Amino acid sequence: MTESVYKIIELVGTSASSWEEAAKNAIETASKTLKDLRIAEITKLDLRMENGKVVAYRARVNLSFKYEK
Amino acid sequence: MTESVYKIIELVGTSASSWEEAAKNAIETASKTLKDLRIAEITKLDLRMENGKVVAYRARVNLSFKYEK
Amino acid sequence: MTESVYKIIELVGTSASSWEEAAKNAIETASKTLKDLRIAEITKLDLRMENGKVVAYRARVNLSFKYEK
Amino acid sequence: MTESVYKIIELVGTSASSWEEAAKNAIETASKTLKDLRIAEITKLDLRMENGKVVAYRARVNLSFKYEK
Amino acid sequence: MTESVYKIIELVGTSASSWEEAAKNAIETASKTLKDLRIAEITKLDLRMENGKVVAYRARVNLSFKYEK
Amino acid sequence: MTESVYKIIELVGTSASSWEEAAKNAIETASKTLKDLRIAEITKLDLRMENGKVVAYRARVNLSFKYEK
Amino acid sequence: MTESVYKIIELVGTSASSWEEAAKNAIETASKTLKDLRIAEITKLDLRMENGKVVAYRARVNLSFKYEK
Amino acid sequence: MTESVYKIIELVGTSASSWEEAAKNAIETASKTLKDLRIAEITKLDLRMENGKVVAYRARVNLSFKYEK
Amino acid sequence: MTESVYKIIELVGTSASSWEEAAKNAIETASKTLKDLRIAEITKLDLRMENGKVVAYRARVNLSFKYEK
Amino acid sequence: MTESVYKIIELVGTSASSWEEAAKNAIETASKTLKDLRIAEITKLDLRMENGKVVAYRARVNLSFKYEK
Amino acid sequence: MTESVYKIIELVGTSASSWEEAAKNAIETASKTLKDLRIAEITKLDLRMENGKVVAYRARVNLSFKYEK
Amino acid sequence: MTESVYKIIELVGTSASSWEEAAKNAIETASKTLKDLRIAEITKLDLRMENGKVVAYRARVNLSFKYEK
Repeated sequence: MTESVYKIIELVGTSASSWEEAAKNAIETASKTLKDLRIAEITKLDLRMENGKVVAYRARVNLSFKYEK
Repeated sequence: MTESVYKIIELVGTSASSWEEAAKNAIETASKTLKDLRIAEITKLDLRMENGKVVAYRARVNLSFKYEK
Repeated sequence: MTESVYKIIELVGTSASSWEEAAKNAIETASKTLKDLRIAEITKLDLRMENGKVVAYRARVNLSFKYEK
Repeated sequence: MTESVYKIIELVGTSASSWEEAAKNAIETASKTLKDLRIAEITKLDLRMENGKVVAYRARVNLSFKYEK
Repeated sequence: MTESVYKIIELVGTSASSWEEAAKNAIETASKTLKDLRIAEITKLDLRMENGKVVAYRARVNLSFKYEK
Repeated sequence: MTESVYKIIELVGTSASSWEEAAKNAIETASKTLKDLRIAEITKLDLRMENGKVVAYRARVNLSFKYEK
Repeated sequence: MTESVYKIIELVGTSASSWEEAAKNAIETASKTLKDLRIAEITKLDLRMENGKVVAYRARVNLSFKYEK
Repeated sequence: MTESVYKIIELVGTSASSWEEAAKNAIETASKTLKDLRIAEITKLDLRMENGKVVAYRARVNLSFKYEK
Repeated sequence: MTESVYKIIELVGTSASSWEEAAKNAIETASKTLKDLRIAEITKLDLRMENGKVVAYRARVNLSFKYEK
Repeated sequence: MTESVYKIIELVGTSASSWEEAAKNAIETASKTLKDLRIAEITKLDLRMENGKVVAYRARVNLSFKYEK
Repeated sequence: MTESVYKIIELVGTSASSWEEAAKNAIETASKTLKDLRIAEITKLDLRMENGKVVAYRARVNLSFKYEK
Repeated sequence: MTESVYKIIELVGTSASSWEEAAKNAIETASKTLKDLRIAEITKLDLRMENGKVVAYRARVNLSFKYEK
């Protein structure tokens, strides 16, 4: 693995039910086009409200994948 | 919206079951008196134990709302 | 001054033209009810867009004032 | 305790003699109106000088108390 | 409590289902040998993927317990 | 909005006159190809000098937009 | 000294009178079993209250000592 | 350029009108005696008030210049 | 240079021998497709082990280049 | 005050008895040559040990003073 | 791997020649007693001087390993 | 040592070959005029490129030395 180069991108996933789902949505969307995803770090959690109710949990994630140029 | 002023307060919600519930408790309590809450940022997560068991998940949240003076 | 107690609050001001105006709006709104404001620290700058245009500059400020209880 | 909501406020205490006194002044002033204070975190220490002498030690503290709405 | 000394250790718990479970696993494993655990702070959340799917939620926690020397 | 995924990119805008212009340049350039930009966070401000004069204000901004894969 | 390996541990000392005493308690307890302690960095200061009074000053310290394996 | 040594100093500029002017004041004052200034990073923005009005914008800047010893 | 817009990307380079080589690998790979790279900031260093031996040094770098849209 | 320029320097004071004394030593030494010192921020506290005993409290302070060039 | 618990410890390695050697010394010393080490994060780099010469490069590393209780 | 005062300065060293050399250059240049340098902390690492090649490794270091006023 030693001479590889990886790229890190930052995505925000959202979910009506949990931060786990929010992160999973971001990752599974990314995995359609990016290969070899292994670790995603959470860099921020927040949530959106409407009329005093929580309507979305959001998780910001850092994803690394092989950079093929 | 451009000339409005908002105030940010920091609350800690607790829940026996999850951080999502903990944050939701903080927000829904706040929304009884504060209007126009839209985004809550998580600034800290921790949990309390008793006798080696988790008894409460706690989420510290930053809430912004219209500052009417 | 030595035995005084101060309280710090965090406000977000907005302006259509600049971060200086945004911070000034927050402070001048606060100064209607709070006395003895002297220093405001900027803790975050951001801006809102609509249709690809900037519509508001926002400045988050920490303000301290005398805490009279 | 599990479903409670707490609020966090930030105060600055000052003292002519030490940061311990500065923090204590902030807390004891707050405790006149706030109930159930348990932990105060120090977020900043500084000091004021006049004519090359220290005239006040200042401690910024984060205090949490029950949020009763 | 005033003259006690505590030690802080950092553990990483993992779970296939949630960060709450991940933290709980770390804590309950630690509580087999450490006494008087009361608060655990989350210092990092991440997750591991395999073949584009989330396989583990991981929570890094700071735990304090009585240091008996 | 709840199941959407967003991507965050970081740009640096420059301007001979102000940080507001610098950020605006970055955003308006990005908005030619990215849709649905709403909030841009400032992550760094600096400036370039030549011969003891300021020649450019620079603002580093984080922009989020819909991630369509 | 050049090829040595050190270990860093984090302790929390408490004292009814000052943060200096709190840190000293942590260090002197540690020095009963650890050799060659030289520098302790403060990573957090807080205090505990009961009935509106300060009952304990707490100092979190990072201690390094020779790691002999 | 490769074997050069630079020194970094931190200045605070002030201005009655904007943070751009504040930073520019700091830099142009420094450039009277320091040569080869190229980049100045903003490390803090704040402002001073008197009687509820902003009287000065202040910018803290990090400046690097050739260290000639 | 004053009205240009730059984009910042984050790469991770790896090397069996040093962090300098790791960063260089990331940069030289990027320079095949990106023009006008000038400064790369290191944001993280780590290393991977296998069977108690270091097998790869990794450097995370932030690279800025001209954003041509 | 609005057009003034200040310089910030960082000193480390030491004391056998307390961090207050340590900071005061740094400040009073500086005030022999620097004029118009007003606020000193603490940026780090640590302590030195010898033979398992605390021998010096150290406080790192940021001092600003008028920059006269 | 999903239900495992890991412990993180912090070591400081030193070397007369490089930070790579310093980190490697810390890790290889640890690997004599700890199993299944995989990633070590660098949390601080510094160096020691004597008589104006560098005598040791030091690297502080965070190591995780299986926590078997 | 207990009543001494130290000053901290920040330098940037550069080298065509490594960050170790870059830091060493900064320190050995400083040691021509500053006495009693003992520890230098690395606060930033970056590198400069030209035509897609690394031309200089740069290390920002914090140096403390005796402040004799």
